[in-house]
Amino acid sequence: MEDTGGVVSSLTKRPDMTSASTNAPAALPTEAPAASSAAAQSQDIQRALAAVLPTRNVLVDAAALQRYSHDDAEWAPFVQPLAVVLARSTTDVAAVVRFAAERGLAVVPRGSGTGLSGGANSVANCIVLSLELMTEVLEVNVDERFAVVQAGVINDDLRAHVAGFGLWYPPDPASSAISTIGGNAATNAGGICCVKYGVTRDYVLGMTVVLADGDIVTLGRRTAKGVTGYDLTGLMVGSEGTLGIITDVTVKLLPLAGREPRAVVGYFSSLHDAGVAVAGVSRAGIIPSALELLDQTCIRAVDEWQQFGLPQTVNTLLLAKIDDPGAAGDILADAVARIFTEAGGTSVERASDQAEVDRLFLARRLAYPALERLGPVLTEDICVPRSAVPEMLTRIQDTAARYNVTIANIAHAGDGNLHPLIIAPEGDDAARARAKDAFDQIVSDCLSLGGTVTGEHGVGLLKLPGAAQELGSRVVDMHRSVKAALDPAGTLNPGKAFPASH
Amino acid sequence: MEDTGGVVSSLTKRPDMTSASTNAPAALPTEAPAASSAAAQSQDIQRALAAVLPTRNVLVDAAALQRYSHDDAEWAPFVQPLAVVLARSTTDVAAVVRFAAERGLAVVPRGSGTGLSGGANSVANCIVLSLELMTEVLEVNVDERFAVVQAGVINDDLRAHVAGFGLWYPPDPASSAISTIGGNAATNAGGICCVKYGVTRDYVLGMTVVLADGDIVTLGRRTAKGVTGYDLTGLMVGSEGTLGIITDVTVKLLPLAGREPRAVVGYFSSLHDAGVAVAGVSRAGIIPSALELLDQTCIRAVDEWQQFGLPQTVNTLLLAKIDDPGAAGDILADAVARIFTEAGGTSVERASDQAEVDRLFLARRLAYPALERLGPVLTEDICVPRSAVPEMLTRIQDTAARYNVTIANIAHAGDGNLHPLIIAPEGDDAARARAKDAFDQIVSDCLSLGGTVTGEHGVGLLKLPGAAQELGSRVVDMHRSVKAALDPAGTLNPGKAFPASH
Repeated sequence: MEDTGGVVSSLTKRPDMTSASTNAPAALPTEAPAASSAAAQSQDIQRALAAVLPTRNVLVDAAALQRYSHDDAEWAPFVQPLAVVLARSTTDVAAVVRFAAERGLAVVPRGSGTGLSGGANSVANCIVLSLELMTEVLEVNVDERFAVVQAGVINDDLRAHVAGFGLWYPPDPASSAISTIGGNAATNAGGICCVKYGVTRDYVLGMTVVLADGDIVTLGRRTAKGVTGYDLTGLMVGSEGTLGIITDVTVKLLPLAGREPRAVVGYFSSLHDAGVAVAGVSRAGIIPSALELLDQTCIRAVDEWQQFGLPQTVNTLLLAKIDDPGAAGDILADAVARIFTEAGGTSVERASDQAEVDRLFLARRLAYPALERLGPVLTEDICVPRSAVPEMLTRIQDTAARYNVTIANIAHAGDGNLHPLIIAPEGDDAARARAKDAFDQIVSDCLSLGGTVTGEHGVGLLKLPGAAQELGSRVVDMHRSVKAALDPAGTLNPGKAFPASH
Repeated sequence: MEDTGGVVSSLTKRPDMTSASTNAPAALPTEAPAASSAAAQSQDIQRALAAVLPTRNVLVDAAALQRYSHDDAEWAPFVQPLAVVLARSTTDVAAVVRFAAERGLAVVPRGSGTGLSGGANSVANCIVLSLELMTEVLEVNVDERFAVVQAGVINDDLRAHVAGFGLWYPPDPASSAISTIGGNAATNAGGICCVKYGVTRDYVLGMTVVLADGDIVTLGRRTAKGVTGYDLTGLMVGSEGTLGIITDVTVKLLPLAGREPRAVVGYFSSLHDAGVAVAGVSRAGIIPSALELLDQTCIRAVDEWQQFGLPQTVNTLLLAKIDDPGAAGDILADAVARIFTEAGGTSVERASDQAEVDRLFLARRLAYPALERLGPVLTEDICVPRSAVPEMLTRIQDTAARYNVTIANIAHAGDGNLHPLIIAPEGDDAARARAKDAFDQIVSDCLSLGGTVTGEHGVGLLKLPGAAQELGSRVVDMHRSVKAALDPAGTLNPGKAFPASH
């Protein structure tokens, strides 16, 4: 998860919400009703909800309906929900789902709404169900190294809480200060340290889930291993609320101690050279705990904003972290520095104290908000093989030139997870059209290099066309079958996570 | 995966193969036909198969039909298959599945048949489809650290092959010398180093799968990250061939270098004390690369067989490995030794050269065959929270006393994954009945301590009753729905992996 600004765009094609499929709510009008009837229906629904939930749980004001109508991908399609419910318990969630299922309504679950693919955008005839008030850490088990947390717990809050027990929750999406564990699990969120420590799915042991009929089940385990039945826990992770609504999550934790942060920074004269350094680190068998890239556009935007004194002539910045303890870590950090230098890196420097490490990564963290100051940004989230990073970066530059658009690059480069940011000036329709073409070109290049159309942001609504291309029709069929098996009426977040048809 | 001997038992209840469910082959006689008609049917099937496959692929002799009728869990129910096919390609697998689907037959896939839960046991009206001849390593990608291997590649062969490229495939079931990667993926096999490095699922990036209608699909990715659609790859892993037949697997690899093996061994005067040491290692936040337990019965059986000179008075042996490089590893190994001593361990010793480490683990590896020499063994595979290991070991001893049976213990103790081995003397029906009661008592105690009924061997046929107890009826329903979605006719390995009803 990157790039949590309030970016507006309508560049991405509206997915076909009218096709008959189990991925659309069955037997429902699929377009929003006219405003007046919508308001009347909304009032009816709110009144009926009050019979099954405390009224303080149900938001009825127009501002709330507007506020909860989309996540951070507001350029993806959305309509106003019929009602917004702030669940306070698993029982609340079950009551809302049962209520919706009985009336043929859809339920769109959300955490903080920091998603960047429209996974939490409101659809026709839906109740938006927010889990943001379910913020309790239910259990921290030091001996077994796991925690049980409600879906609304903020990622950073969990990390801080378990640190008090000498434990560590690794997955660190850039949105960690504002995104929820439930949302992280529903989207299988990535982050900066994932290059070494893996993504959210790798830390989810079990969960409580409300199914499409309102039944509540416990999935997974609390033991270190277990193979009883299908991996339904893993299936729920990343399913974007389309198969069940996760109300609490049992997450695996690591010992907090035993890591020693070291940073290596390098300046490169081209994106391609930096890409060669990234591929070189991978080829050398080195697994850094972070390997991030910022290009000149990002560096300048950060520097103009924050006066970090970064050299304006630098084309590309690479930031690596190595956290192996002791001499082993020093050897690896030296090796990374050598690979940077051999790839043409200059000003390669090692920084081993925490303050210095934090300062370097601050520039990285500020890149997205710094770019947002320049205008609306269309965010990409491709992931290519690490060895293809130089070629992909070159193609992105070619695409920028060919379509006459500005593309900035930030990347979890060590994963091959690139976020080309296409900047489309406000009100310039021609530039927006070119940006859209550039967006499609990048997806196409990514697939031709063996990549995937979404590395960590999820399919939501924005990546439906790319997902159709990547998965192929038979695998899309499998998705439709699994969805129909667990949500036959299409109650849960219809139209998201996988294309309705190929 | 432990304990790959040819153990015979009929202690476990035959699962109900007659119940109507999507987990049983639809519209099929569910009992084996009488011998003469079976032979005639078998000949018809073999003749028809010859029309779609090279005849060298189809085994027709009685010895082959017998040999392929069960895996290493021959005490679980099995009948003779109608035919055995040795697939040589994904196309062969697809042809067999299409052939079976058209005729309403079942397909039971298998690798080497080293499973211990009956997952590859032949069912009524089935073709056993072996992938053991698909032994090609199709690709090793050093830069991206993955390999693409056919399903029949032996685990140790893959490890040896990729070592030539400076890479390492961690999952190491005890059957690694004879079990296949396809079987490992189908059962989500564990092993000795899983306590630190995870299980098979953690290393499966993608796969080629033949679906229930014979269609061939590619699932997953070759990139470090990716969230396009549902995690169907993870769903296939551990589904025991009931949702699709895995014909090749893309496995993630780690760099071979960077680990330094060290062993710590300790003798304990009771299972409970050893359990306290195991819980203590976990509580201290130490993640060893192995933490194995052998009790007195195992030690004596190994020593009587191999004259290792292990002290006959030792009650329980713990073997730990620490592989962190440099001083950090030494510190951790010292800490493990201290925890062993504090828990009452004696003769706690560090061994840092490879030969010494190998010698110590050899005793561990020989425990199961050593025990098999004493008589038929009923193998358990429970996994409890690490902190519950002392209590569970105590209860196992109590159970042994209460039911007057011999129970030996080997365990991946660091995972809480215990393998109580109930020794039932040949021909003693009363002892077998008591052993069965003890088996049920252990499952019950495991669940009451928050454990899971199968840590790594899989549900197959043997753990169906335990799985029903653990999962509960609604989660069993979810399994049935997913199975019906992907295999509506019940062609693929019917009756396995999850209970047909609660």
